[in-house]
Amino acid sequence: MARNLKKGKFITIEGPDGAGKTTQAEKIAQYLKSRGKRVISTREPGGTALGEQLRKVLLDPEGSPVHTAEALIYAACRAQLLERMVIPALKEGFTVVCDRFVDSSLAYQGWARGIGINRILQLNKWVIGSCWPDLTILLDVDPTVSLGRLTGGRKDRLESEALEFHQKVREGYMKVREMFPDRIRIIDASQPADEVFRQIVAELEKAGVVE
Amino acid sequence: MARNLKKGKFITIEGPDGAGKTTQAEKIAQYLKSRGKRVISTREPGGTALGEQLRKVLLDPEGSPVHTAEALIYAACRAQLLERMVIPALKEGFTVVCDRFVDSSLAYQGWARGIGINRILQLNKWVIGSCWPDLTILLDVDPTVSLGRLTGGRKDRLESEALEFHQKVREGYMKVREMFPDRIRIIDASQPADEVFRQIVAELEKAGVVE
Repeated sequence: MARNLKKGKFITIEGPDGAGKTTQAEKIAQYLKSRGKRVISTREPGGTALGEQLRKVLLDPEGSPVHTAEALIYAACRAQLLERMVIPALKEGFTVVCDRFVDSSLAYQGWARGIGINRILQLNKWVIGSCWPDLTILLDVDPTVSLGRLTGGRKDRLESEALEFHQKVREGYMKVREMFPDRIRIIDASQPADEVFRQIVAELEKAGVVE
Repeated sequence: MARNLKKGKFITIEGPDGAGKTTQAEKIAQYLKSRGKRVISTREPGGTALGEQLRKVLLDPEGSPVHTAEALIYAACRAQLLERMVIPALKEGFTVVCDRFVDSSLAYQGWARGIGINRILQLNKWVIGSCWPDLTILLDVDPTVSLGRLTGGRKDRLESEALEFHQKVREGYMKVREMFPDRIRIIDASQPADEVFRQIVAELEKAGVVE
């Protein structure tokens, strides 16, 4: 799709589990509606019937995809979501708010899983074409905080492994942000949710999503 | 994987359904074993637990993947098969015989579905790296013959649509063969199975798969 066919804005929310992405995505959608925008909210890797089927395959321990296969399955979910939902909605002038998108692949598969950010970027350029997000909100939070939110403070061996992995994910997001400083706006998600949201609104205004 | 780490040869069989791929693949495996080779036979898009799961998703009318998503799912099957089976087997000196591989994606998705052979090639270079087949046997047959074999000569409206599609697939295979004339050896599969096999053996000898 040529970029100039897009009438609506495409906003993605990124960050680790426990950073508050779902809450903030809902608040953003509500806010945009209150400002008169037509909004479609979605999420990756689900968001379409195919995406939900592939999500089950990804979660099934039976299959255990190798890292490149995992990246390709996420890319298939993304291709389906773009062509079936995001692109038609943007053409109709909707604002699309998506919980996770390409930067999750870059940070998780590219950096934390070690495939290489540039290798995953190459694959995703193939998938996304010209339909990159207009604005990405990156909710940054120390993994000790986000994991604590998810587990209620419980700590064990698995927890420590998870901590190390999530530290790599955070590093990955920082590297991705350096590659796309204009598109990706970082917000300290250890702050109270209302303050996080106030800063998101400021970014929506700066990016021209609302006047 | 660096190509020089491969000890075994990698052989793929291509062509439309009804061309006799499965029969010839079995004969090739038997022949190579009789010549003292250790052989692993496999097929796409299955061949691994993940591949079988993804194959079900591809066949499920519920999901109905868009063309790019379909190409990515086939690519995921390929990545899994390569890393879990083909590459380890080649390193151990096995001859690997695979029923369908990259050229199916190029002919079906690239040409017959209209995504573009070069676009599908770009994706598959990402997946395959340096582990391209050493020899590909393309069983070429007029779709009226191969479809007749599959349906026992029955003809109806769906059949005619299938005929047009399979003519495009055949065209696609011819274009792919022009791109890789050294690797892809074409054999007229309208001949009796024994004659087809005799010509395959000649190609195996020419390619140095057997001495």
